[in-house]
This record gives sequence, C-alpha cells and structure tokens, in this order.
Amino acid sequence: MYPPTTPDPLSHHHLTTQILNYQLTHGMHLKHIIHPNQPQPSHNITSSSSSSSYPISTSIFPTPFPRALFHHAHTLQPIYNELYARLSDNESWLYNSVIKPLLPVDPFTRILWEIHLRMKSEREGGGGYGSDISMGLFRSDYMLHVSGNGNSDQEEEVEVEVGISLKESENAGLRLKQVEFNTIACAGGCHANKVVDMHRYLTRTGVYNDSLSSANGEESREKSPITLSSLPTNENIKGLADSLATAHDIYGPVRSDLATKTGVLFVVQPDNFNVADEVPIEYALWDRDVPVPTYRVEWGHDVLGRTCLGGNRELLFYPHLQGEGSKPVEISVVYLRAGLEVHEYDAVGIECRVRLEQSRAIKCPSVLGHVLTFKKVQQAIMGLGVLERFLNSEEKVKVIRDTFVGMYPMDGDSEEGRYARGLATNHETAWRYILKPSLEGGGHNIYGEDIPGFLLRMGSEAEWGRYVLMERIRSPVVRNVLMSRMGVEESDVVSELGVFGLCIWKKGDILRNETVGWSLKTKFADVDEMSVVKGFGCFDTPLLV
Amino acid sequence: MYPPTTPDPLSHHHLTTQILNYQLTHGMHLKHIIHPNQPQPSHNITSSSSSSSYPISTSIFPTPFPRALFHHAHTLQPIYNELYARLSDNESWLYNSVIKPLLPVDPFTRILWEIHLRMKSEREGGGGYGSDISMGLFRSDYMLHVSGNGNSDQEEEVEVEVGISLKESENAGLRLKQVEFNTIACAGGCHANKVVDMHRYLTRTGVYNDSLSSANGEESREKSPITLSSLPTNENIKGLADSLATAHDIYGPVRSDLATKTGVLFVVQPDNFNVADEVPIEYALWDRDVPVPTYRVEWGHDVLGRTCLGGNRELLFYPHLQGEGSKPVEISVVYLRAGLEVHEYDAVGIECRVRLEQSRAIKCPSVLGHVLTFKKVQQAIMGLGVLERFLNSEEKVKVIRDTFVGMYPMDGDSEEGRYARGLATNHETAWRYILKPSLEGGGHNIYGEDIPGFLLRMGSEAEWGRYVLMERIRSPVVRNVLMSRMGVEESDVVSELGVFGLCIWKKGDILRNETVGWSLKTKFADVDEMSVVKGFGCFDTPLLV
Repeated sequence: MYPPTTPDPLSHHHLTTQILNYQLTHGMHLKHIIHPNQPQPSHNITSSSSSSSYPISTSIFPTPFPRALFHHAHTLQPIYNELYARLSDNESWLYNSVIKPLLPVDPFTRILWEIHLRMKSEREGGGGYGSDISMGLFRSDYMLHVSGNGNSDQEEEVEVEVGISLKESENAGLRLKQVEFNTIACAGGCHANKVVDMHRYLTRTGVYNDSLSSANGEESREKSPITLSSLPTNENIKGLADSLATAHDIYGPVRSDLATKTGVLFVVQPDNFNVADEVPIEYALWDRDVPVPTYRVEWGHDVLGRTCLGGNRELLFYPHLQGEGSKPVEISVVYLRAGLEVHEYDAVGIECRVRLEQSRAIKCPSVLGHVLTFKKVQQAIMGLGVLERFLNSEEKVKVIRDTFVGMYPMDGDSEEGRYARGLATNHETAWRYILKPSLEGGGHNIYGEDIPGFLLRMGSEAEWGRYVLMERIRSPVVRNVLMSRMGVEESDVVSELGVFGLCIWKKGDILRNETVGWSLKTKFADVDEMSVVKGFGCFDTPLLV
Repeated sequence: MYPPTTPDPLSHHHLTTQILNYQLTHGMHLKHIIHPNQPQPSHNITSSSSSSSYPISTSIFPTPFPRALFHHAHTLQPIYNELYARLSDNESWLYNSVIKPLLPVDPFTRILWEIHLRMKSEREGGGGYGSDISMGLFRSDYMLHVSGNGNSDQEEEVEVEVGISLKESENAGLRLKQVEFNTIACAGGCHANKVVDMHRYLTRTGVYNDSLSSANGEESREKSPITLSSLPTNENIKGLADSLATAHDIYGPVRSDLATKTGVLFVVQPDNFNVADEVPIEYALWDRDVPVPTYRVEWGHDVLGRTCLGGNRELLFYPHLQGEGSKPVEISVVYLRAGLEVHEYDAVGIECRVRLEQSRAIKCPSVLGHVLTFKKVQQAIMGLGVLERFLNSEEKVKVIRDTFVGMYPMDGDSEEGRYARGLATNHETAWRYILKPSLEGGGHNIYGEDIPGFLLRMGSEAEWGRYVLMERIRSPVVRNVLMSRMGVEESDVVSELGVFGLCIWKKGDILRNETVGWSLKTKFADVDEMSVVKGFGCFDTPLLV
C-alpha cells in the first residue's frame, strides 16, 4: 500500500509541522505581493521593509516513478539541446514552419520577429546582434504515458500499478511523452532542489519508517519503501549556477576600458512573488571559489537606465548602490527571467530587449532561441523528415520521436489543419485532445470536451490558427498526499518530470551540451493544469521503482 | 560619516529588497501564529497545512563595535562557564544566597526548588536525579559602558565617537558590562548566524561600496569602511550542534535492551513562532558525517506520552510517526527550549520536568543549572568574597568583576536592600537604575523614572524583594538604519553582544568548557527593552573597529 500513512491524525499533524518548519527555514516560500489597488502603508519606505510569505505546495511523500524512465529522460536532454540549437540556427526553416503561420494571428510572434528583423537590418550598418554565441537553459517536460489502445472510444481512467509493484516500466508499456519544451526563463529549479533535500532529510530522520499500517495488524506490516537509495539527489542550484559560470568563462576577460570586471546579469520581473526560485542561483554564483559577480536588474526602464553599450558593444551595467563615478561592470551573460510575456513588450520593453541583443553579452536566450519555446515548434518538428534533417543519427531521431504524441496545426489551409479542426470540433473525438496556444502553454490550455464550445465562441475561425491540437497524455494514476494552502489531501495524482539542459553554441558549433538537473511536479489526477505557483500542483521527489 | 547612506530613495529600496530576498530564502522569518480566539479554517487538518511568516528585524548596515572588546567577551566566556558550573555544584550557597530570599515571594522559585527537593528525597529510595553530569549552553550578554562620572546628578546622553574613528576602546574608556547571564533555552543563535552571513554576502557583492556620500561632493567621498575583514564570521549553528554532539558522545552507547540507538531530544514550546531559531541546529545534527539522531517533542503531555524510563533510568523516546512495535530511541541529551516560564509548570509540566530529571540523559540544563538564570544570581555573586571563593585565580576574579555594574537586592531586611530601596524610591537617584524581576529579565523590567511610581503602586513592600536594582549601563550611541515590520529608520542605536558558552561538568569536574558563538542585537537608543522577536531590536553584525 502506497503512500505510507498512519491512521493517527496527530502523527499526520507532526509530519506536516516538520515540513512547514523545513520550508520556513529553507526559503521554500512564495511572497505575498501587495497589489497596487490594496491599501498601502502611508510611508513609502515602510511598504518595502517587510514582506510576508507562505510555503510553496509540496507532496508529503515522494511519488513512485520508474527508475529507467527517470534516467532515460536525462539521456534525452543533450539530444533535445542539440536539436533546438540547430533549429535556432536555421532561420529559413524557423520562418517557414513556425513564424510565418503565426504572424497573421499572433501579436507576440510579430513583436519578436520584428526585433529579429531590426537586428538583421542594423547588421548592415555595423550594428545588429552583438554576439554570435547563443545560450539555452532549457527545460523539457514529460509525463508517463500508457501505450495501448489510444483509439478507444470510451473515456476510461488509466489505472496502472505504477506504485511499488511496478519494477519494469518498459514491460508495463509506459513511455515518456513530452508535454512541452521551454527555452526561456525556465523556473522551478531551486524549489525542486530544496523539495528533494527535504524528502531526503525526512527519510533520514526515519519519519517514513514503519508507517505502513494495515487493518490486518502486525503480521502484514511492511517496511516503508522510501529509502535514501530510491530518492535521487538534486543539485539544480549548483547546476544552474555552474551553467551560467561556464558561459561567463566563455565570454572571457573585460574588453571595455571603463569596466574593471565582468559579471552575470539576471533580468527579472518586478515584484516577482517567486523570487525564491531565482536568488539561490545568484548566491551560488557569488559563493563559488572564484566568485562570479552577479546582479539583478528589472526588465524595462531599469535595464535602459542602468546599462549602456561600450565602444565594442560591451554591455556596461552600473550597479545599484554604487556611488557616482564608480566603474560599471561589463556583463558577460544576460540571464532572462523576464521578457517572456507579451505584455512586457511595450515600447520600453522592446527597447530593453533590443539593447540586450545589441550587446556582445551572451544572451540566455537570444531572440531566435526564445521563439523556440512556442508550442508551434513542438508541432512543426513532428513534420516529415524534420528530425532527420536536424539530428545526425537514426538513434537520436528514434528516441526523440518516441517522446511525441499526436500534435496538429489548427490552420484552415493545410490538410493536417483541416483534419485537426475536424477532431477538435467533434465531441466524439475532442475529449482525447488539449488545445494549446501556439506560444507559451501555461494557463491558457483548453481541455477535452471544452474544446468544441471554446472554438465556436471564438468567432473568427482564422483565430484558430493560434492554437495547436495535442493528444492528451494518458498518465497512470498513483496515490499520494499533497499539501498546499488549501489543505492536506490524499488523492489520485499524476506527475510531470522536467529536465534542465544547458546548451551553448556558436553558429553551428556546439560549445557545451549538458543535462543540468531536473524537477518533479505532481498534481491531483482530476486537475488539468500543472502550475505549482498558481496552486495547481506540488513540487515532489520521485521514488524510483 | 557612518553609516554609509545614499540620498537616493530608489537605491535604498534596492538594498532593502536584497535583504528581504535573502531573509526569505534563508529562513530568517518568524511564523504568524493563529491564536485560538481567531477564526479557524473549518477543517482540522487544513489549519496545519500552511503557515505564513515575515522577516525578523535586522540592521541594514553592520554596527561599529570595538574589536578588542569583541574578542575580550569571547575570552570571558570560559571563566563565566566555570563560575556558573561551580555555583550549581554548591547547593548550600545557592540555597542561602538565591533560593531562600526568593522562596517567600516567588512562586517559580518554589516550584523549581520543590522539584529539586523531590529529586533529593527520591534519591534515598534509589530514585532522584538520574545523571550526575550537567550541561549548560549559556549566553552572557554585554553592553558597552562608558566609564566615568556615573555619579553625575544630571541625566545626559552618552555620545561617544564609537564610529569609525574609535580605534582603541580601552583608551576611550569603554568597558564591557554584563546585562544578564542566561542558562536555559538561550535563543538567537541561528538568527545571529544568518544575519552575519547576510551582511557578509552584501559586503561581498559591493552594495556598501562607494556609498558614503556627502553634500560636499566628489572630493570628500570615502571608501566604505565595511570590508570582509572587519566583519567576523559566525558559526553558531555548527557550534551549538557540535556542543550537543559532544554531550551526546559523552553519554556513550545504548544501555537499554529496548533501544537500538541513542539520540538528542529537543523539548520545545508548542506553536513557537520562533521555530526558525531551533530547527537549523537539528538539521546540523542530522547532517554531520556521523549523524546524531535528533527529535522534537513538546513540553508537557507530549513528553509524558512519548517517553518512559528504562530499567537503568534510560530515557526511552518513541518518535512520532513510527508504527506500533517500533523500537524507542534512548535519549542521550535533553535540550530544553521550553520549561523556562512559570506558566509552563502546571501539574503536567512539573511531571514532565521530573521525568526528564529522573532519567540518566544529560540535561541542558538541569534544575540547579536552570535556577542560575535568575537575576538574583547576578546580584548575589557581587557579594564580598563570592567570586574569590568560586574562581581559582585573581586574574579571573578581576576580569569578571570588571563586567559588573552596581546591583542590589530589594529586600527590607539587609542593609544593602534598605539602601537600594532608598535609591529606587527617590526620583533624584532612580533614573540611574533598572528594576529587574529576580528571575528572567526579558520584558518585565522597569526603567529609571518609572521605578518609584511602580513600587508605590505595588502595594505590599514585601513583594519588592522579588526584584533586584541594577545600575543602568551607559552605552555609547552610534548611528545605523534598522529595518523591521514597522519600517526602515535611521537613528541613534545601541548594541548588545551575547556570547554563547558550552560547559559540561560532573560534580566538580569540568569535562568541557568552551566559547561556542555570539550574537549582536541592536536597538534604537531611546527604547529601553531589547527583544528582537518582540520587535524591540534587530539582529546585527559588528563592524570591528
């Protein structure tokens, strides 16, 4: 029986208290953000002198996950890194397969593409992109998928014994299927690291021991399956900091006469309630044996006011709180944790992005790396011969294709698009799909039976082209107890494994290509969306079986 | 000019934001505790599934403190440790000088002394105290004191240049004077450690650089005096964990046939909003190369329900969340972070303390160590020949006596007591004194001109004997900016240096005697009380000058 539970509510309370204490003392918290329309303290400075916070959602027990597939996801990452690096280098494919279909229907695509075109045209006058080195800190997300009769007309709950009895995932017909591939501002690394540390700490203290109880009494009691050797360690924070330090080293020494040192710049969103997922990476950079100076600046005005371009397009940054006359820092790496949402691209936001792209700093990501985060890309690379064109071995093509589920464009022109429109508007078939905006997925997906009505209400069918239709992943259901601000609840759950990858490349030449870390997020099986910070999921640790 | 400030409010905002982010991600937070009379969520488990929190108060800049006196306080600690160990071993002195005067007027003294007497009487039947090893994790608190004309009739602000110009504290007439000596549940170690880490991190990032500004413009700008070499490191968490591990080792191997291992037990107050000052020590014990199993149990019912005495008076503890039939842990060290307040000693609380004292576990502290925390002890050891009797060298006596300010009993019988009553009831003299309860100081002190009125309102003069009268320490005033939930404010401030000490002794034999760590707390100069968790002060780092 999994998870281990005790019938004693007091013991339950003891475990949640231990988790709350651990979260409190390890920064696993989200900030309460005071919204502008809420009453403010009268004194200006006062409002910035305190900030209350609350714990991020977490599973109480680790969630069983097939060991073989956990490791397989890690081996996939360098192949995905390479694929996306090659895609970003091929402007014509990118334009024809991703940008062109989106331009008429999507404003964000237009904004980013116009920035790209402006960079290209400036190049002729000696301006344009300031660096030919690109960097990605990617995150590829997977769910477990039960292969088999996907054509069944009946909707049935997938209930596979993934729990402790599942030993050989391949035999059980389980596969990893990709949910999405993110190329900008990939979050969750720090929280994932700390949640794993927490579950491992709890395991070490023995609170999961002997807690498998049964109504059958003594003889049927089993030892808890939760042991340190079944919980993988997680070093995301070190891995992400090492990645940025690697790019920092590749940038090389100071070039500008004005600056005395180089450093990494985190470009962040103002008033981010999830800052606890960013700053630990900064601390890790400062804490290295050879510290990497690291600074934060807010997207928009703050970037424009505190940076300028040097004579050789060095990005010169004037840190806050350093007096007039101080030397600027020459920025080696721009790490974007902002600039991922269309509302950030007003005139100031656009100039901010242009300033960064014009500089010789290595951008994580650059504009062409950024647009690869669009869901449209996932659908486009499924096309005939695409993987074969960008990957240099059959084996790579095979393992990547194995992670695909059916995915279709929703345009009215192509044959595929018309086929997808048929699937999506028919109640008999729509339940097997998710309708995703072609851009960032999070939060705007339409699920199953809601799709036909949603499309009808949209008005113009031309708008449908902004979406892709994706087959739903049929994930096996396991049990766990999830803990959030809403309460503590035992339920059927499903998990999503994210793998972080680093890729640094220079016009076809891949300089670094690594798997950096991973995260596991778990949600109630009957909830469609996965977003921990919005309250639709928990950070978790896989119990490898 | 100190502290370094910038005239730019935006920069100010940037610094406070950095501090808030650091606090959030390092557990420098206090819990919001839901009080029983506040509306509760309907579902029982829900109320324990989240806990919001807010940052603990901190200084924005380190506060100047004389380097020589900072180090001197560390050298005092082993002498104070030894003194208090010797005092606790001398029951007759303790009874005559401390307990006997308090028994008629103070219920807490009666309760603790009755527990002691019960232990002694049980000893004749083979029961009583279960261990002859005693342990103290002490904290001795000091403030800087300006020697000189303390007899002046005029109240004058002490404004000495302690700032960056102060280099030779001895020459400047500064001394360390002891505020109090704490022998039970000494708090602040973890917060102090993290605040120092934070100020050192901020220094490393350069935010204090070049931030000394002046209206006189460029030519008068100075470099910030805040450098890593002037900020001492702090390893309280490791030091406190090492101390408990040392006692754990001294206890030795398992004796009970029932238990399979030994471990440390933290006895804590329920719903402690300051749990972030306790659990890091537990994590450090679990994190050692050879982990020391460490458990938490709440004072009272929880102790009685989860422990029992083994055949050789082993304290056997049954951890939460371990199934029926599991083996208990044999407790090596009982670390009290509860049982320090009189309201905790109802019938259950008394039985709890008795159970612990009866066991062979090493108590930190035992009952006779506990009563040494009473302020009455500070006054009693000032008596003629007392230091000479308990310390074995003139030099030790001298340096300890140097930390004393005038302190008097308030009884109506002794000549000293009558003299003190005269000082305390006279408005001409009372302003130079603090009236402190003979027991724990925190929060119930009466300051200066409030004393005469307070005494008059008390009714029975017999009650006055519950207090001691202490000369006010005349602390030099420096400038700093303090940050709390109330806001960010630059002001005159004064600091209090606490030094943590470990002593383990066995009937006259001192087994371990060490300085373990330190804390610095700073408050507005015009606020009398010092209690960070109550909002009357900030954790701080000394800028050694």
